[in-house]
Amino acid sequence: MSSNPITEYGFAAVPASATQLLDDPTTKPSSPPPAYSISDFSIPNTALAKRIQAYAKAHLPETTYNHSLRVYYFGQAIRQYRLQPSGGSVWDFSDETYFLSCLLHDIGTTEENLNKTRLSFEFYGGFLALDVLQHADDDDDATAIAPREQAESVAEAIIRHQDLCEIGKITAVGQLIQLATIFDNTGSFSDLVHQETIEAVSKAFPRSKWSTCFTDTIHKELHLKPWAHTAALGEEKFVGKVLGNRLMAPYE
Amino acid sequence: MSSNPITEYGFAAVPASATQLLDDPTTKPSSPPPAYSISDFSIPNTALAKRIQAYAKAHLPETTYNHSLRVYYFGQAIRQYRLQPSGGSVWDFSDETYFLSCLLHDIGTTEENLNKTRLSFEFYGGFLALDVLQHADDDDDATAIAPREQAESVAEAIIRHQDLCEIGKITAVGQLIQLATIFDNTGSFSDLVHQETIEAVSKAFPRSKWSTCFTDTIHKELHLKPWAHTAALGEEKFVGKVLGNRLMAPYE
Repeated sequence: MSSNPITEYGFAAVPASATQLLDDPTTKPSSPPPAYSISDFSIPNTALAKRIQAYAKAHLPETTYNHSLRVYYFGQAIRQYRLQPSGGSVWDFSDETYFLSCLLHDIGTTEENLNKTRLSFEFYGGFLALDVLQHADDDDDATAIAPREQAESVAEAIIRHQDLCEIGKITAVGQLIQLATIFDNTGSFSDLVHQETIEAVSKAFPRSKWSTCFTDTIHKELHLKPWAHTAALGEEKFVGKVLGNRLMAPYE
Repeated sequence: MSSNPITEYGFAAVPASATQLLDDPTTKPSSPPPAYSISDFSIPNTALAKRIQAYAKAHLPETTYNHSLRVYYFGQAIRQYRLQPSGGSVWDFSDETYFLSCLLHDIGTTEENLNKTRLSFEFYGGFLALDVLQHADDDDDATAIAPREQAESVAEAIIRHQDLCEIGKITAVGQLIQLATIFDNTGSFSDLVHQETIEAVSKAFPRSKWSTCFTDTIHKELHLKPWAHTAALGEEKFVGKVLGNRLMAPYE
């Protein structure tokens, strides 16, 4: 159990608007981002992190799994360079919590899960995450279970990861998942990550034409479920941004 | 099991934007709404409806329960007058599905549930609904269980009932829940419901200062969970609209 679950699990409330957060002149860094290598950020090796990493690897297609790992590294790079220096303890949530959120944020998009439910994929994904994080097989290490509050932080971030608001607040871990997924999917916020960081992360976790895979998933979901929340992003406009991702084009 | 779950459970995709839906000149009625009485719309009396109605009555404070029933009647009035005449089968979902959505849409706002979770109340409410709809005590009638798809339609509507988008789509039952809750909470869309309908429904299910109760709940949630999705409505602005609800002021 955490002594401060709000901080540790990333619940601290931050602006929901990426623009409001990043354009704040009092927090803007005075120098460009440094080049990070893969070894600058470690993958958590707790029993819980290992169990969920194995789960994600077993259930996600390779392209989605690699995307999830890129989101982890890009998010850590963004957090360290742009958010933590001026953010107080708000951004000091555990690597484990962020890692779990990355691994599971697109769990609702697998072929099996898209067809298993009429729910929007983010909602089903959040629901699934709550379950898989808090339950394990009997063989598993008893410490491989997430405390309820950690599971809820991950679920909240998953449910809202395509909820791009200009008003209100979101959890810190939820905002970081949004920034990192938008960065990987569309190339926005390119001033936050060094080109060499992109190269290193993309080399370790290849895109393998991720842009096309992702837009196929968007189309697939909206074909199956035209009412889905994904449509709130504006299907044509969002697909256009993903396919027009120039920043990541060299690594496709 | 339904032969057409998309229609029966209200999944048909409609514009998420209330403005786009209601301002469509090709569907605007040529006459104002008729006066409906309580007897014009029946409360579903299936085993499932009765079980969930009893559940809601037992768990919700009286003011929230009455609000949920007003949302049912106002929603039916709006559907019959404004949506069904020009909507094809899109709006022909079952009364039972709509009733279940109304009864459970605010289940996340009870004192117990607000304090039980770090999740935004709509998300917790949706998950709770999925569970309570699909599981019953051994004593209950076996038909008092919702099919998975119906439970999912209700959950989707609950999760999105404060997700006021201008872009994309939403389920038909989700849109109706939004229209009816906004109508009861803020008095918007006043051209859709006859004054006598408001009087009759408010007499049968008194507001008992609902506006103040509801704003208290908003403040309570955001005090406990400043990151919650409710903040996306703009706390001050939304509270202002609720407290400034002139349409319902005579019935407070």
